[in-house]
Amino acid sequence: MTNHLAPLTERVWTDELGRHPGQRVELKGWLHRLRRLADVSFLIVRDAHGTAQVVIQDAELVERMAALNHESVLSVSGQVVAERQAPGGVEIHDPAVTVIAEADEAPPFDLYRPVIKAQLPTILDNAPVALRHPRRRAYFAMQAATMSGFRSSLRTLGFTEIQTPKIVAAATESGATTFALDYFGRPAYLAQSPQFYKQIMVGIFERVFEVGPVFRAEPHDTARHINEYVSLDAEMGFIEDQFTVMAVLSRAISGMAQALQEEAGAALQLLGITVPPVPEQIPDIHFLDAQAMITAATGEDLTHEPDLSPANERWLGEWAQREHGSDFLFVRGFPMSKRPFYTHPDPLRPGFAAGFDLLFRGMELVTGGQRLHRYQDYVDEIRRRGDDPERYADYLMAFKHGMPPHGGFAIGLERWIGQLVDAPNIRETTLFPRDINRISP
Amino acid sequence: MTNHLAPLTERVWTDELGRHPGQRVELKGWLHRLRRLADVSFLIVRDAHGTAQVVIQDAELVERMAALNHESVLSVSGQVVAERQAPGGVEIHDPAVTVIAEADEAPPFDLYRPVIKAQLPTILDNAPVALRHPRRRAYFAMQAATMSGFRSSLRTLGFTEIQTPKIVAAATESGATTFALDYFGRPAYLAQSPQFYKQIMVGIFERVFEVGPVFRAEPHDTARHINEYVSLDAEMGFIEDQFTVMAVLSRAISGMAQALQEEAGAALQLLGITVPPVPEQIPDIHFLDAQAMITAATGEDLTHEPDLSPANERWLGEWAQREHGSDFLFVRGFPMSKRPFYTHPDPLRPGFAAGFDLLFRGMELVTGGQRLHRYQDYVDEIRRRGDDPERYADYLMAFKHGMPPHGGFAIGLERWIGQLVDAPNIRETTLFPRDINRISP
Repeated sequence: MTNHLAPLTERVWTDELGRHPGQRVELKGWLHRLRRLADVSFLIVRDAHGTAQVVIQDAELVERMAALNHESVLSVSGQVVAERQAPGGVEIHDPAVTVIAEADEAPPFDLYRPVIKAQLPTILDNAPVALRHPRRRAYFAMQAATMSGFRSSLRTLGFTEIQTPKIVAAATESGATTFALDYFGRPAYLAQSPQFYKQIMVGIFERVFEVGPVFRAEPHDTARHINEYVSLDAEMGFIEDQFTVMAVLSRAISGMAQALQEEAGAALQLLGITVPPVPEQIPDIHFLDAQAMITAATGEDLTHEPDLSPANERWLGEWAQREHGSDFLFVRGFPMSKRPFYTHPDPLRPGFAAGFDLLFRGMELVTGGQRLHRYQDYVDEIRRRGDDPERYADYLMAFKHGMPPHGGFAIGLERWIGQLVDAPNIRETTLFPRDINRISP
Repeated sequence: MTNHLAPLTERVWTDELGRHPGQRVELKGWLHRLRRLADVSFLIVRDAHGTAQVVIQDAELVERMAALNHESVLSVSGQVVAERQAPGGVEIHDPAVTVIAEADEAPPFDLYRPVIKAQLPTILDNAPVALRHPRRRAYFAMQAATMSGFRSSLRTLGFTEIQTPKIVAAATESGATTFALDYFGRPAYLAQSPQFYKQIMVGIFERVFEVGPVFRAEPHDTARHINEYVSLDAEMGFIEDQFTVMAVLSRAISGMAQALQEEAGAALQLLGITVPPVPEQIPDIHFLDAQAMITAATGEDLTHEPDLSPANERWLGEWAQREHGSDFLFVRGFPMSKRPFYTHPDPLRPGFAAGFDLLFRGMELVTGGQRLHRYQDYVDEIRRRGDDPERYADYLMAFKHGMPPHGGFAIGLERWIGQLVDAPNIRETTLFPRDINRISP
């Protein structure tokens, strides 16, 4: 019986050559680079795991390779030879090369250079090729590890995964920032978050999480905004207060950091990145105290500011690093006026939310908190904001029929990786970014 | 230091009472039912894991409970007592009950009955409550386990998880079935599959998978169509042929079945469902042979049929069960005319695809196959179909710059669960279904 899995399971990867000294192996991958020297040439083959150096002394083979465009797909069999000077300590000698698929054109930029020498718009326009660059690929290996760590840490705490609908009948938080859709001649919208559905699902599974796309029609054109991104959402019932939510979030962030080490180690090494330690107890500070501290230090009068500016967040990030040696800082108790209607007020400080932002290196990474859970509280708060509870009837059904105290949070995946790799623009760590000017590739 | 995780980690669940005989414990959950008998009453409390029986002899407490609507949220502390006749073999005696949140209205239907006594539209209109019914909840516990098993089986085979954009500049396979969107005044569409992006990503990670929503604007109103569903997608490079893809799919299905047993055992037991064994080698049959067999058996002339009808699929499902004892059957080699332009033809039988459907109990569950990988083949095929390759320039960039032989598949999550639980309508196993008439709740 033929083993049809063999092409995948028996594959020798470039990063495994060290296990096969003296043996003949077959590599498969892309023509990453050809370096022609006077008496020898080096063919660099790239596969999904890394690159390998193939030594070519046969002049005819060198000519055959030189006639190929970079990114042609090859099969290379040859002998594994230890060579201290070669990358990875081994190289391939005596190669036989088969061309699996010829590239029709040279790449728009060199993929073998340490970084792509092109402006960001050119890189994004050519994403199907640019993403093959080892450093860019590493960002998305980090994304995959992050999703894995997020899920496993929450599953350990008894959370159930859900997938909620993205086509919705009404805007979630505010109609202004929602994409409209023609749904068989009726209006519909793209979900700007799974907020309503994840809360409803607390009534079913008590603890839920979702990894999925969210859509924001905000017409910003900045280095930190994109219009579609991946949100790591969680929501949980029977909490004590917002601190239960913050403790779960800390676990999730720890799980993400651990998975990065365990599952994206090669990517971290390539990028020269150290994943920051997540403190057992992430420091936290109240919004008013944060403002007072910034005012005392900078003289900036924040008395009437209902939110933190990006500059305020940066200042706090530096403070958390200086005072607590932490890349992470919770800011609790933002004014209710800037929080969505489902926000639970702090019972000890009405007017301020039982909610938080988590800053990571001076940038908001997560928003979360406790939600209202009584039906009448929703009706009152929606009316107080001049809106009509009837518009939210489907959502409010959950509260009409009994809901426990609950809360949750949402982590922006692209922003997490962006901060980790210190990307100057969120588009760098977004697989195929959508912004006000871009919906392709 | 307060342990803020305690409300979640120290929780005693209804299905854990057997571990606490003689102890006083605190349960939290919903007032599922109150049964008043002559000299004793039974309060049934439901949490995310199941239900527990609380014996009430205090007349005042019975009256207090009777005054509450079902679905009110309670905390119940009491003594765990072994009682053979109680569900689960234990019950709670001597209870003290605190009302955490009162339900404002009685549920629109009884959640404590074995099945909800209401028509499907009523159930769907009231999904936030209906999903709390243990049987309905079980479907989505099965979904969560399925996603988990899908991911872990593919990760074991070296696949990397991706999240591709859902807002796209052009229709994927055919413009007719795509939802249009207003994207800052420009036209855009909702991705009807991650097909183009997962193929592009083969150039980066070689083996990728994605779990995410797909959107189909097909104006069907049948028991087996919905307009947004969850697709379990995979794509892999350096395959031998379509059989490599089929072997990986078999592994994925095995992983899904195994995770159902391991992670959704309680749901399976509640529903009385046995997960079918996945054969080591799933039987397969060529499209033409399948047609010939159906014709021989039924007299139906299928000579000019380019596809299988639902009735044909059911016939084949029964045949696979009868001949091979298998709930699964691959049908290979559908005519190219019915397959999308990126389909690779069978080199041995041009005109027929190097692709397959996987039938599960007589219904198509998966479509997959080998794809074209040469740029010129794409250009030729797109032109042959009367379309313009320029429209697909972003996608074709991947092939212009070198792509290996590759293929993949897409599994419909809701259909998998629907077939497993023998649901008469796909909406039963869809969390919040969207169809031609419904986008809420």
